Amino acid sequence: MTLPARKAAAPLIEMTASEIAASVASGETTCEAVARAHLDRIEEREPQVLAWQHLQPAQVIAQARRLDQSGRRGPLIGVPFGIKDIIDTSDMPTEMGSPIYAGHRPRGDAACVAFSRKAGGVLMGKTVTTEFANRHPGKTRNPHDPARTPGGSSSGSAAAVADGMVALAIGTQTTASTIRPASFCGVFGYRPTHGDLRCVGVKEAAGSLDTLGLLARSIEDIALYRDVLLGASPEPLPADARAPRIGFCRTHFWPRAEPGTQQMIEDAARKLARAGAQVKDVELPAELEGIEDAHRWISSFEFARNFTWEIENHWDKISETLRNGRLKDGLSCSFERYREARDRAERCRRLLAPVFDDHDVLLTPAAAGEAPVGLNSTGDASFCLIWTTAHVPALTLPVFKGPHGLPVGVQLIGKRNADRALFAAARWVYRALS
Amino acid sequence: MTLPARKAAAPLIEMTASEIAASVASGETTCEAVARAHLDRIEEREPQVLAWQHLQPAQVIAQARRLDQSGRRGPLIGVPFGIKDIIDTSDMPTEMGSPIYAGHRPRGDAACVAFSRKAGGVLMGKTVTTEFANRHPGKTRNPHDPARTPGGSSSGSAAAVADGMVALAIGTQTTASTIRPASFCGVFGYRPTHGDLRCVGVKEAAGSLDTLGLLARSIEDIALYRDVLLGASPEPLPADARAPRIGFCRTHFWPRAEPGTQQMIEDAARKLARAGAQVKDVELPAELEGIEDAHRWISSFEFARNFTWEIENHWDKISETLRNGRLKDGLSCSFERYREARDRAERCRRLLAPVFDDHDVLLTPAAAGEAPVGLNSTGDASFCLIWTTAHVPALTLPVFKGPHGLPVGVQLIGKRNADRALFAAARWVYRALS
Repeated sequence: MTLPARKAAAPLIEMTASEIAASVASGETTCEAVARAHLDRIEEREPQVLAWQHLQPAQVIAQARRLDQSGRRGPLIGVPFGIKDIIDTSDMPTEMGSPIYAGHRPRGDAACVAFSRKAGGVLMGKTVTTEFANRHPGKTRNPHDPARTPGGSSSGSAAAVADGMVALAIGTQTTASTIRPASFCGVFGYRPTHGDLRCVGVKEAAGSLDTLGLLARSIEDIALYRDVLLGASPEPLPADARAPRIGFCRTHFWPRAEPGTQQMIEDAARKLARAGAQVKDVELPAELEGIEDAHRWISSFEFARNFTWEIENHWDKISETLRNGRLKDGLSCSFERYREARDRAERCRRLLAPVFDDHDVLLTPAAAGEAPVGLNSTGDASFCLIWTTAHVPALTLPVFKGPHGLPVGVQLIGKRNADRALFAAARWVYRALS
Repeated sequence: MTLPARKAAAPLIEMTASEIAASVASGETTCEAVARAHLDRIEEREPQVLAWQHLQPAQVIAQARRLDQSGRRGPLIGVPFGIKDIIDTSDMPTEMGSPIYAGHRPRGDAACVAFSRKAGGVLMGKTVTTEFANRHPGKTRNPHDPARTPGGSSSGSAAAVADGMVALAIGTQTTASTIRPASFCGVFGYRPTHGDLRCVGVKEAAGSLDTLGLLARSIEDIALYRDVLLGASPEPLPADARAPRIGFCRTHFWPRAEPGTQQMIEDAARKLARAGAQVKDVELPAELEGIEDAHRWISSFEFARNFTWEIENHWDKISETLRNGRLKDGLSCSFERYREARDRAERCRRLLAPVFDDHDVLLTPAAAGEAPVGLNSTGDASFCLIWTTAHVPALTLPVFKGPHGLPVGVQLIGKRNADRALFAAARWVYRALS
């Protein structure tokens, strides 16, 4: 991965989380030194990138010093991480991208934050989110081009990792909110099998679809962070993965991908086949074409009900985008329509399962193309709709450059509950493509 | 339903929610008068029952007066309701039955609280919960006998409805936490199809199993409250339900029911058949006998991870019951074991579905018998394990008296997603048995 505007004398900000933790554990560096390197990077770049909703350098240094003094170890010792600002933190505000929560101070840490700290991570701050992880954008800009969106809703988390401000970040995904910004910013992004990683302390958008999302500098870091968040002992990925059986799955959204993106993925499929993978075209069962509609009614019905307190008490502080979008949809959606959508999503999950009998992973676009110009939209979410609704794991790899030299990801989809197999296959794919 | 120690001159505290709302809407009474009647009842009985964690009469009266002055209407106008103290309220503390949350003040209302207020309900206060809705008991006593448990974990919610302190209350259920206390206290208790009623603002125990639970004075009130919490327009139950097809389902837990309970349910099955219902014995597929184990690992794995912040920061404030029970289980449970349990639960759901091809509802015990003597245990949870894990709706009806004259419920189980059909059948059953 190449950092934009790379700073020559700051190798710490290019290290992966695993490398940082190893370096701290061996005494080569300290938590404080790592934190300072990343704070320097933030000081330099934040005026352009605007990835942070809350960040206090003194608080970061204090955390790092406490870790250094305690002599504690852990799989993420000294690793600087960022947390999307819809996720509770006991010592920092959690403002949800909404004036309704200005200055809000939760009582405790979300489970994912507590796990990250327990593993030795240093919480740098809260990253910018769109309003309630929906579409109304925050201030963040794409670190590769400030005129372009970083994608959303985990805008600050993706931008901060892409720009070398943190080694790891947590976002969430209800539609495309991790995979899309990861693709636009040029980092690894992971959406887990639905239900695996606990969402306690995360503001719910639509629980039937919500997951955490992880943003990182390598596949190994994502596998490591997942283990930490499962409360499991980290287990390295197997050393040599065999060439995977890859299903090239354009989906019925293919025409929404830009021609350059289509071309890059077609080329990638050929390259992977040449490298020894079995690559076959996969057509999904026709019923999955209805999944966009199912996603719409599930997400909007749940969202509109989840925000009943905000709607009843702070309607005037909710953006027009949200009021006239997901809330309007959700408030007009009957329980019967919602339940039909839920049933349809369940059928789609069952229909998708056998596709993985013949394929280890599916190869598919992560987004339509490069991050679009403009900060008012976070981009097209189409290429995540099927996978999010189907509850399967997804990973985007930063392997392409678009016509303007900006990153474009390729998305790999795994079988439900086979997240580690997805990581192993993705590592093979990444090596073959980069 | 007979209230214990009934107060002769206080008919308002015996009215159902529907009756109270109609009475306020027609101008026969006011929100304030209803609130005062219930506050009087609470003043008289709270020293014995101890149902409340937080209750400030002045705050209740102020709410009721605002409603009266506004002229607002709504399906629950003037209805006094109680909220389990693991559920967020913007204007009252939310202490979770744990010293870790002493004095905790959430920013907003949980979605279910906001919906109740939107419908015109008057929030009386926060009802006692066991610690984090697990097993370590709160102070509440059974309103029928202070030497006995009210059941848990929704202890205060069930006791308050049973004692005429509120017309409606919200609890939760991860194992048996609504159905069991409803049975022990002698009220209607309802656990919905998993996923239907939004849990935003409710402290999660184990999200794969958690639901809200409703406690009420009638089946009609439960149907009404469910519509309110779905954000739907209330729709009355159909006027005359046909005699239902009833499956008498003893389950493999039957030997855990007391002989008197077994006898009452056998008698009830015969009585229902005589009243015109089709009643047939149902044996569940053998694999469902493994569901207790699946429930154990799903609930404990998720619980232990959900409480990572509390475990890491406040271990000394967690009860021995919780540390040596669910947390010990959960912290020792691997992700692989958890995932196997989740898969097994999913298979059990699929195996249970066809049982409802031939039966509208299943008839089964709600609890082993009367509330046991003693306040240290909230009672046997066995009779809810299958249904909670299977995500199907359940309703307990207060129709029996045990050997000591205390209430014993009978449980009816509906098909997943057929909650209204369950209500209709339950009304038929309730009329036939009472």
